[in-house]
Amino acid sequence: MRDVETAVTAAAAAATDFDGLGRAGRAELLTAAAHALAERRDDVVAVADEETRLGPNRLHGELTRTCYQLQLFAEVLHDGGYLGATIDRAGDTPAGPRPDLRRMLVPVGPVAVFGASNFPLAFSVPGGDVASALAAGCPVVVKAHPSHPRTSRLCADILSSVLPPGTFSLVAGFEAGQALVQHPAIRAVGFTGSTAGGRALFDLANARPDPIPFYGELGSVNPLVVTPAAASQRAAEIAAGFVGSMTLGTGQFCTKPGLLFIPAGAEQLRSALAAEVAAVEAGPMLSDAIHRAFVDEVATRRTDGRLEVIGTAAAEPGERAGAAVLFRVAAADLTATHLQECFGPTAVVVEYGSVAELVEALSRLDGQLTATLHSGADEVALVAQLVAQLRQTAGRLVFDGYPTGVAVSWAMQHGGPYPATTSSAHTSVGATAIARWLRPVTYQKAPQWALPPELRDAPPEPLPRRIDGTLELPGR
Amino acid sequence: MRDVETAVTAAAAAATDFDGLGRAGRAELLTAAAHALAERRDDVVAVADEETRLGPNRLHGELTRTCYQLQLFAEVLHDGGYLGATIDRAGDTPAGPRPDLRRMLVPVGPVAVFGASNFPLAFSVPGGDVASALAAGCPVVVKAHPSHPRTSRLCADILSSVLPPGTFSLVAGFEAGQALVQHPAIRAVGFTGSTAGGRALFDLANARPDPIPFYGELGSVNPLVVTPAAASQRAAEIAAGFVGSMTLGTGQFCTKPGLLFIPAGAEQLRSALAAEVAAVEAGPMLSDAIHRAFVDEVATRRTDGRLEVIGTAAAEPGERAGAAVLFRVAAADLTATHLQECFGPTAVVVEYGSVAELVEALSRLDGQLTATLHSGADEVALVAQLVAQLRQTAGRLVFDGYPTGVAVSWAMQHGGPYPATTSSAHTSVGATAIARWLRPVTYQKAPQWALPPELRDAPPEPLPRRIDGTLELPGR
Repeated sequence: MRDVETAVTAAAAAATDFDGLGRAGRAELLTAAAHALAERRDDVVAVADEETRLGPNRLHGELTRTCYQLQLFAEVLHDGGYLGATIDRAGDTPAGPRPDLRRMLVPVGPVAVFGASNFPLAFSVPGGDVASALAAGCPVVVKAHPSHPRTSRLCADILSSVLPPGTFSLVAGFEAGQALVQHPAIRAVGFTGSTAGGRALFDLANARPDPIPFYGELGSVNPLVVTPAAASQRAAEIAAGFVGSMTLGTGQFCTKPGLLFIPAGAEQLRSALAAEVAAVEAGPMLSDAIHRAFVDEVATRRTDGRLEVIGTAAAEPGERAGAAVLFRVAAADLTATHLQECFGPTAVVVEYGSVAELVEALSRLDGQLTATLHSGADEVALVAQLVAQLRQTAGRLVFDGYPTGVAVSWAMQHGGPYPATTSSAHTSVGATAIARWLRPVTYQKAPQWALPPELRDAPPEPLPRRIDGTLELPGR
Repeated sequence: MRDVETAVTAAAAAATDFDGLGRAGRAELLTAAAHALAERRDDVVAVADEETRLGPNRLHGELTRTCYQLQLFAEVLHDGGYLGATIDRAGDTPAGPRPDLRRMLVPVGPVAVFGASNFPLAFSVPGGDVASALAAGCPVVVKAHPSHPRTSRLCADILSSVLPPGTFSLVAGFEAGQALVQHPAIRAVGFTGSTAGGRALFDLANARPDPIPFYGELGSVNPLVVTPAAASQRAAEIAAGFVGSMTLGTGQFCTKPGLLFIPAGAEQLRSALAAEVAAVEAGPMLSDAIHRAFVDEVATRRTDGRLEVIGTAAAEPGERAGAAVLFRVAAADLTATHLQECFGPTAVVVEYGSVAELVEALSRLDGQLTATLHSGADEVALVAQLVAQLRQTAGRLVFDGYPTGVAVSWAMQHGGPYPATTSSAHTSVGATAIARWLRPVTYQKAPQWALPPELRDAPPEPLPRRIDGTLELPGR
């Protein structure tokens, strides 16, 4: 593991100076990285398409998103609120005298990031984990996903061309990944991938003599619930929307809805779903391994006596093509295996006989990235009950929409109770993703010059701060 | 474990209504709890003194701090900024259209708290973990520390008298603690105690089918560094301050400085330290077990050929009395065992021959709650170098002061890299301790009535919110 040692040693050596660049300095670097990627747009998309077959349209969109993500973190740095800068001036309190205390978040140090297979750009080498860690001031060592090695290398070269030496490195291979998680100088890990792989690395991180945070996004079935009123009022629209969401990216999104709860006897909705699935064109899956896993899982489900096929894609499947298939099950027959994630264009439709039966089934769900509710205008009490139940398991609640499509923004939450993520208090998408790479430090009675600029009496770049308990905004 | 099952079941049943009380409702309860404790002040102090021998003065102070802590969290609730309420209105972005997204923190659900031995009030049943969890909206089940069972019971009865049924319970016993950490309905754990005990429970929490966050405060030696200038300019003052801090509470504080780095040849400082230690009166330790561990550890250190005793308390030791003792070692002879925490009134003085030797020794430290630096006015470059090094291991940096005394305030950080705490991103003291019991949820395209009040267009109780990327304060 000489590569890992070299990369981590360089990262550790670069950490203090990288932090020392400050918010403005790092914001410039993120903007430069976004520009550098955009300049090489055609090369990046071409290589990524060769390796993933996701198609130029999707990949151009993903690159745009990736550049925007880098820019968002530059904005987060300019704002500065993420630091939680807090100053308590010396004084007396009912619990005794208090010294001058000044607290803010500081980078944790070098971190490791594991790229995902299904977003070769936005959740891989130049993706959200890397962007947020660099923004935080943490040097990053990325473990490349084996499904797109050349895309990873190209993106790494582009990032390295603008970043200070040591602050970004790429390593590859299963053993390199394990060595990274166990390396004493690595202070946190970001991961997007399977529940099995993520749990194994999570366990490694926690078994260290000094456990470190492991931020893994693992698995989610993203339940979608249709109430009786919605089923009768919007059957065709929901069927089209659900199947579109389920088959987007050939069902290989972490937010793919894999469970659909509909009222028993909603014949119109059920047949609309079957018709929509029949019309889906089979797209190529990301890799032979993923394709094989999908085909095997569908075959297993076909032999499950409780499941009934209610729709299959009619189109002739091509090479490593994922042909959509929809199963149904009565809520009373639901087992734990039906509630598990299956990567690819398939879902289980659960038919519930009563609200009590629906709520009971929902209470058996594992943690989820998202939960979606389609309801009618007159179902206020029912919606309140279902939201209270779903909020216990999910990080994002979608109303009358679909879970695929994760906006990069300030208010996004992409995370949830295990196994959706290993740390439900955090997100891997959106502005607050930066919080994973920071820890608080309080300076007690420090002289002005020994403080980080953000905690000095007059900070050179204004930011929101809480002073003696009151939040204050810059320039007010 | 029928007690655990009863307590957790009641907590789970109470969770939704407790959250539904809202910030104002829970702030009222915290204030009521503070008043109820203050009303029973004499009873609480009397029972705690019988069990811990900490003395009425210290215990009255600790109760005052405990009540103030409850009030601080009421203030945190009124402020509302801790929720991180964020609204992104629907619109177009460079990465595509964005739906209406509204994010805030919500309670994780029922939590478990393990009381500490050394603060029977402020870090036990009515302490900071419980106060912050209740503020967050999480029902709490406390596992009582066996060293003060009657104090725990009395405080539990007082809290239960003002809190809604199910939101607070007390259980006792080693097995109850393990069962709590493993109970499916428990969503997070707070712990203050030994590294061995904390690590065992941390491992249990992570071995669950669904791992949950374990916020443990374990061990810290709290290094204190004296620069050459400080040693020559303020020898007497530093010796008195250090020995006072080391022996406060008979050396049984988690912030006790257990390592003192001084320049080799600082004879004046060394002899002042010896004189101060000789004058310390031996106080009673918290329990027979803690006393025995202290005596054993001191005996082991006395047989360590690298360590030399430079001062011992002259006073006749009484029953379970901890007699202060100070060792010295040359930095070149420092081993890993010298760097480990030893509960009780003892410390190791490390004499460094050069700044390089000092920095090398500091780089070998484990994670710390605090690190303290005493320096002279002309040592700006040296201080910068030492602060950069110490910040990598500690959560609080104390300048020309002493680490004991942890203010309850907005800017306090009481946590650090492992083993100081199991999660360096969090604190167990101060306003932000509430963050341990919360997780973010984003509402996508939710109707106004389905949103928590804090995310509605017009929140009934104003709070700081970030709207379309801009932080806004109430009433501005």
